[in-house]
Parts: sequence; C-alpha cells; structure tokens
Amino acid sequence: MHFTSEQRLDDGVLEREFTFGEIPGILWTPGSASASAPAPLILLGHPGGLPRMYPRLAARARHAASDGFAAATIELPGSGDRPRDAAAEQARADLRRALQAGESVSDDIVDRLVLPLVDKAVPEWQALLDALLSLPEIGGPVGYSGGVISIGTRLAVVEPRISVAVLFAGSFVPRAIFEEAREVTIPLHVLLQWDDEGNDRQSALNLFDAFGSKEKTLHANMGGHTGVPQFAGEAAARFFTRHLS
Amino acid sequence: MHFTSEQRLDDGVLEREFTFGEIPGILWTPGSASASAPAPLILLGHPGGLPRMYPRLAARARHAASDGFAAATIELPGSGDRPRDAAAEQARADLRRALQAGESVSDDIVDRLVLPLVDKAVPEWQALLDALLSLPEIGGPVGYSGGVISIGTRLAVVEPRISVAVLFAGSFVPRAIFEEAREVTIPLHVLLQWDDEGNDRQSALNLFDAFGSKEKTLHANMGGHTGVPQFAGEAAARFFTRHLS
Repeated sequence: MHFTSEQRLDDGVLEREFTFGEIPGILWTPGSASASAPAPLILLGHPGGLPRMYPRLAARARHAASDGFAAATIELPGSGDRPRDAAAEQARADLRRALQAGESVSDDIVDRLVLPLVDKAVPEWQALLDALLSLPEIGGPVGYSGGVISIGTRLAVVEPRISVAVLFAGSFVPRAIFEEAREVTIPLHVLLQWDDEGNDRQSALNLFDAFGSKEKTLHANMGGHTGVPQFAGEAAARFFTRHLS
Repeated sequence: MHFTSEQRLDDGVLEREFTFGEIPGILWTPGSASASAPAPLILLGHPGGLPRMYPRLAARARHAASDGFAAATIELPGSGDRPRDAAAEQARADLRRALQAGESVSDDIVDRLVLPLVDKAVPEWQALLDALLSLPEIGGPVGYSGGVISIGTRLAVVEPRISVAVLFAGSFVPRAIFEEAREVTIPLHVLLQWDDEGNDRQSALNLFDAFGSKEKTLHANMGGHTGVPQFAGEAAARFFTRHLS
C-alpha cells in the first residue's frame, strides 16, 4: 500500500489516495484519529468507477468520520483506470442489448457479468483489509457498506473480520449468491430504493429473505437509484454506530 | 369526554383514563406539558382489547411522552368491554374456521371482518380528535401510530388533521382499502415483521406499494408479531420527532 497524495479536508478528515499493487484507492481517517485510539473501519463498496463515484463516496466517508470511523475504498476490477476484461465486457454488452430490446436479463448473462467480478474483487478487499488493519490509526471492528451487493454478500460469508454490513440492493444477483446469502450470519441493514427502475424489486426482496442473519433489517424508500433520502443514510449510520462503536 | 381516573407515573407522565360516550380510553401527557406549550399528539392504534394491550400501549405512550408528545387511545368497536356485533362475530368465527382448516382466507371474510370495523372506528377516532384538541395541554400536529392498518389508512385519507402515520403491517386488508391507500399523501413509516406467521407478507408489500405518499418508508425486521426490535421502535419515534416536533 503506497500513499500517493494527502489532504486535510475542511472538517479535519485526512483523505489519502493510495495504490495497492496496481489498484487505486482512497482512505479517509477522522481528524480525531490518533495512534492511541485506532478507529473502527468501514469499507465503502460501490459499482465501479472511482472518479465518477468520488463525490458520493467522499460524502459517505466524511459522515462515517464524523461518527469516529475510518473509511476506505478501492477501484473494482475492470472499472476506472483498471484493465478491462474481454469476457466481462462481452457480458456487459449482452446485458445492454437485452435491456434495450426490452427482454428479461437471462441468468446466464447475470452469472457471466457478476460472478467473475465477485471472484476477483473479494480477495482484493480482503488483502486491502490486511494492509489497512496494519496501520496504527485503524483498529477494528470492520463494517462493509454499499454495493455491489453480491460482493458484500460474499465478503460477509468468507471474511470473518467483517462484523456487520449495510448492503445496497439494486444490482443483478446471480443464483449462486442467493445460496451464499443463506450462510451470512452477521447483522445486516439492507437499503432498497423501492422505485429504482434499474432494480428488480422482487429479486431484492428474495435476497433479503435468503440472508441467514438473525438480525437483518430492510429499509425501503422512495426515489431512484441515487435518491436515498438523507434520513435513510442517517439510519444506516446509526446501525454502524450501534454495532461498531 | 369524562376523565375517570388520574395517576402520575414514575417518569412524570400523567395517565388519565376516560370514557368518551360509552367508549373507554386513555390519555397520556408528558410531565413537562403545560398550557403554555401544548404538546403534539400521537393517536395509538391497536388491534382491540385495551386491558390486554395496556402494557404495550403504555410503553409506547411513555416513549412518546419522553419525546414531548401526548398520546391517546380508545377501545375498538366490538372489543374489550364494548358490545359485540353479531355480524363481526360471525366473520371472526369464519376466519378462525378457515385458518384452522388451513384454507386461504377469502376476500369475503376479510371484507366482512374489517370493513364494518373501519366504518365504525374511524368516525370515533375523529370525534376523539375533536375532544382532545380542545384540551389546553394538547396542540398539534397529530400523528397516528399502529394497527389496525386499515383504520390507519382510512384515517390518513379522510382526516386532514392527521399529518403523518406509523403503520404496523400485519392484519388482513380488504381490497377496498388498497384503493383508498392510493389516495394517502401524508408521510408514512410502515413497520413489517418479516417472519410474522399471522401476517401475509406479500399483501403487506403490495399495500406499501399502493400508498400514494411521496415519502414512505418500509422498515422490515425479523421476529414475530410482537417482536419489533427496540431499534425499530426508536426509528419510528425518530420519524415522529422529525415530522411533529
């Protein structure tokens, strides 16, 4: 992990860009963070494309920092400046074609689009966790926040250092991930935008139902994909505070 | 409205039982309430049977009082000490028979069970509102909290003094109420117990979908009918504070 830039934001949050191998990423730590009191960590998931996602990620990170949490994210495989994968690009083209033709998206397309992404991204986030938890200003426990919900689901199953997750419903979910969801046992807080046109609502409800966790909460709100109301963001923040503080 | 008893609870809340015509009811006002600062009001809905429901209603009322709200409730038609209605009793017997036989409950039974109850209860709650808002210690705005969700839905449509509602999904809903739900425009916060055995989850989701409100939020949690987690109760309280304070 190699820090490439550092700036102190107006609310005292320290924002550092880094490269992790070839992968770009960003780490935010609270202004109050010190070696004597390492901060719990929230991994910020997103759909890929750090430059495009930066404003929303930074806003989530600053909110987390105001609650005393560090936050970090990395670019997804095949997004932003990272090399494209021919098979994933083909699956994306097939998806676009199906959507434009008004066809339902086949399980085959969803599998080809999402499963290789999950297979590649999850070990990267786990390695990132090794690196972040070796920093003196970051302690634990660790939460995962955001989409891609299939990545969050797999991480919740395979990574024991992640103790809670806020998951954003709203992307295509392969059948295999529904099976993995039954193995999730950590507390979950799932956000669903009820009228998100790009989202299969019934699939999101089925996935929520499949999660094996004893404590799981679904918060459904009106508004489109990026229209999560402020009060819903605050409720998700309270979930992290309740479990990580 | 005739007060029949009065006691000061240990947290300073004033609890007064009353009769409203022939209908028994309870009013709770915050210890801090005074004529100079009349309290907003929350009407506490319930499935009927005040003596049985008292512990849970009192807990909700004391929580509301700690947020600065008055709270009031009355017995439902045909419940508690109020006279039974032969047609409603017949519908209830038919419901019990269908459930015991493992049959699906017909629309006809639901209509006969719920619609006359809504028709009778809603004007009673509206008249109660007249009486309560004439008390110097109660001002407004007014929220409705609880079940029966069909009563809350009808009230939200026909009673302009009710400005927000927390609705508990979990009872049989007549087809006509789904139509009325489309006319609801006030902010709604709907609580759904995901694994409530006595509840038709899909019907609850359909009703949430039908509400016409621009701001509506669904909070689904694990646990049975009476197992609403403490954090979910607190989230509902914050909804009232956000809108009524």
